[in-house]
Amino acid sequence: MARIVMKFGGTSVAGTERIRRVANIVRAQAAGGNEVAVVVSAMAGETDRLVNFCREANPLYDPAEYDVVVASGEQVTSGLLALTLQAMGCKARSWLGWQLPVKTFSAHANARVDEIDAPRLRESMAAGEIAVIPGFQGVSEEGRITTMGRGGSDTSAVAIAAAVDADRCDIYTDVDGVYTTDPRIVARARKIPYVSYEEMLELASVGAKVLQTRSVSLAMKHNVRVQVLSSFVDDGAPPADTLPGTMIVSEDEMQKILEESNMERQSVTGIAHDKNEARVVLTRVPDKPGAVADIFTPLGEAGINVDMIIQNVGRDKGETDVTFTVPQAELARAQALLEDKKETLGFNRIITDSKVAKISVVGMGMKSHTGVAATMFKALADRGINVQAISTSEIKVSVLIDEDETELAVRVLHTAYGLDAKDEAA
Amino acid sequence: MARIVMKFGGTSVAGTERIRRVANIVRAQAAGGNEVAVVVSAMAGETDRLVNFCREANPLYDPAEYDVVVASGEQVTSGLLALTLQAMGCKARSWLGWQLPVKTFSAHANARVDEIDAPRLRESMAAGEIAVIPGFQGVSEEGRITTMGRGGSDTSAVAIAAAVDADRCDIYTDVDGVYTTDPRIVARARKIPYVSYEEMLELASVGAKVLQTRSVSLAMKHNVRVQVLSSFVDDGAPPADTLPGTMIVSEDEMQKILEESNMERQSVTGIAHDKNEARVVLTRVPDKPGAVADIFTPLGEAGINVDMIIQNVGRDKGETDVTFTVPQAELARAQALLEDKKETLGFNRIITDSKVAKISVVGMGMKSHTGVAATMFKALADRGINVQAISTSEIKVSVLIDEDETELAVRVLHTAYGLDAKDEAA
Repeated sequence: MARIVMKFGGTSVAGTERIRRVANIVRAQAAGGNEVAVVVSAMAGETDRLVNFCREANPLYDPAEYDVVVASGEQVTSGLLALTLQAMGCKARSWLGWQLPVKTFSAHANARVDEIDAPRLRESMAAGEIAVIPGFQGVSEEGRITTMGRGGSDTSAVAIAAAVDADRCDIYTDVDGVYTTDPRIVARARKIPYVSYEEMLELASVGAKVLQTRSVSLAMKHNVRVQVLSSFVDDGAPPADTLPGTMIVSEDEMQKILEESNMERQSVTGIAHDKNEARVVLTRVPDKPGAVADIFTPLGEAGINVDMIIQNVGRDKGETDVTFTVPQAELARAQALLEDKKETLGFNRIITDSKVAKISVVGMGMKSHTGVAATMFKALADRGINVQAISTSEIKVSVLIDEDETELAVRVLHTAYGLDAKDEAA
Repeated sequence: MARIVMKFGGTSVAGTERIRRVANIVRAQAAGGNEVAVVVSAMAGETDRLVNFCREANPLYDPAEYDVVVASGEQVTSGLLALTLQAMGCKARSWLGWQLPVKTFSAHANARVDEIDAPRLRESMAAGEIAVIPGFQGVSEEGRITTMGRGGSDTSAVAIAAAVDADRCDIYTDVDGVYTTDPRIVARARKIPYVSYEEMLELASVGAKVLQTRSVSLAMKHNVRVQVLSSFVDDGAPPADTLPGTMIVSEDEMQKILEESNMERQSVTGIAHDKNEARVVLTRVPDKPGAVADIFTPLGEAGINVDMIIQNVGRDKGETDVTFTVPQAELARAQALLEDKKETLGFNRIITDSKVAKISVVGMGMKSHTGVAATMFKALADRGINVQAISTSEIKVSVLIDEDETELAVRVLHTAYGLDAKDEAA
């Protein structure tokens, strides 16, 4: 007996046949005596179709009208899932974003959930009615439809879980959990049964594309337990006692689980890689107070997200090299902006390199284990992998390397931190 | 300078290219200094696609969820038309049924417009913003999406025209007006420039499928001038001073127009035919008080719409034949119901015939012209067409004939009432 929010993505609801499979999974949860709300995406391909219509109608589209058009995709699947559940004998009804309401603020087409105060939804769920809710959509203060940007359905699900004080939020997706690293690179990657919000945020933001980052932040804020699991399991089989996916929990709960299971925390939980960074080196920047701020302030104002920053020890007296990374998609813009300010900033030249990769080892256990970074540098050095830049946080160490060495580095580190499974993953 | 509501059907908005043509027509009206609201249907084929999804999901679908699914079609086109108008430099925004709101009552999937009190819509239109409104949809008292049944967009347009006190409601369709009869049968059929609500109701309900009957009733109730015209005219050409289509007006306005143009009203305005009726004869019904009521009460309770009724003079003492018509689609149900009650009703046998057609001559002028019915019977008799039943109202005479003689009868009557155009219609 629990209160559960379930979320299914576009592939899981692509067509009435697949919606029936989803309905079976939902029904099994409801039949177990649970209160259930389901959040659904649009059918796979539908949002693209609608976005294309908008582009054809008006290349510089008004995001308010764009939202009216694209939100219809989730509206359709929520109505269809409610109908399918009813056909199976379940009580079910749809709740559109403006009906709950899911209040959002900020821009159309990229809205953020403000609050959901859903007394009617709670009542309906408590009365045994399955709530079917279109993800991705909300309503603005002006009473107009908003959408939350691509992938926003994860965030919708977590927000609704917070609103109804759910015991957990199950995100059904095309992978069956969060792995110690990308299983396509390391066959011995293991599924992680529990991961903390903080670790998940670092893993997601550096490349483990399982959950939208914003949804993890929201879950952390409201302490919502989020489970990632596969929707391609046996029809109607409710998750067994052994965790079918990965549970994302608070650090407190994580500690309790470790204590109860009498397990020691590993120093590193997972290894992520990201090939979408580019490296920028400004040579011979005047080594004076404020010089670095002069470089990064205009980049920040232009909305360019600077990640790693290294200021080398001055080569010559009064001069230094500054190295940093930006997303590849923003490299050209960053370069143009800096060239414009070359005189003011006083550097000699800009050297850029897109053929780099960021490799990160992430783990809450780092706080209590020493030598994590040293292990990393030694393992890479032993294989002749050159480290171009380093950045660290409390629970993460990242290095920038040559892109060609990505897979090698990930495999080497996965072994070095003892993450390899005994048998190869299926 | 006028306030105009325009309505475009599914064929006119099927795809972004066609939506651009519609936007051109709308822009021309707005550019003429008019306040404009546009009501749109779903793209042709889209409603069928959505209805099929519902059927697949749940053959006995919950009409409330059905409405959630199918209303999305109009939502998409209204957003796209607003975007297209904006791309042309017009101020425009969409108003969904629940935003205006278009309050409806009665059943889901077949809702009726209750009231539209749209101060925000009026303000927006007065400020020069083109309002784009999805047809067919409204919102129930419970705050859920409703739809008005197929063809409901005409009704939406008239309801909005009433709400904003529009000078006229232009219904763009695939025909360019209301004709004296079906031009596919009579090449010399003429477009009628003005027709009264009452005449239009009789013409529509007996087969001239131009406007949804309910929309005409609503226009009559709120005295909304409705113009039917073709959306396949030159791009952007606003209607010229000569009427491009047919204007449907009140009897008062009709009188004024006739006086001003110094024209005499013709006895018959148009001729309609309907092949969807079936004839039922009950033989040897006891000729006693209440016998006829006993027949028609159960049919009425079963929702079967009985149209023409003829009680022949009793053949034998104490017995009579009763003839009536029902829609062909309800013939089997009517027959079963009557067979069930054969004992109580006391008739001898049921004779049915689906191969019949109802031909109606309609005209407000009948009130002041005599001999209209006689002209009809004589013209038909002259060509050997046998009349099986007759019914009349103040502005209509209908006869039931053999279906095979439909086209002949329509042509004969069109000539007999002087409706033939001098030159063949294009």
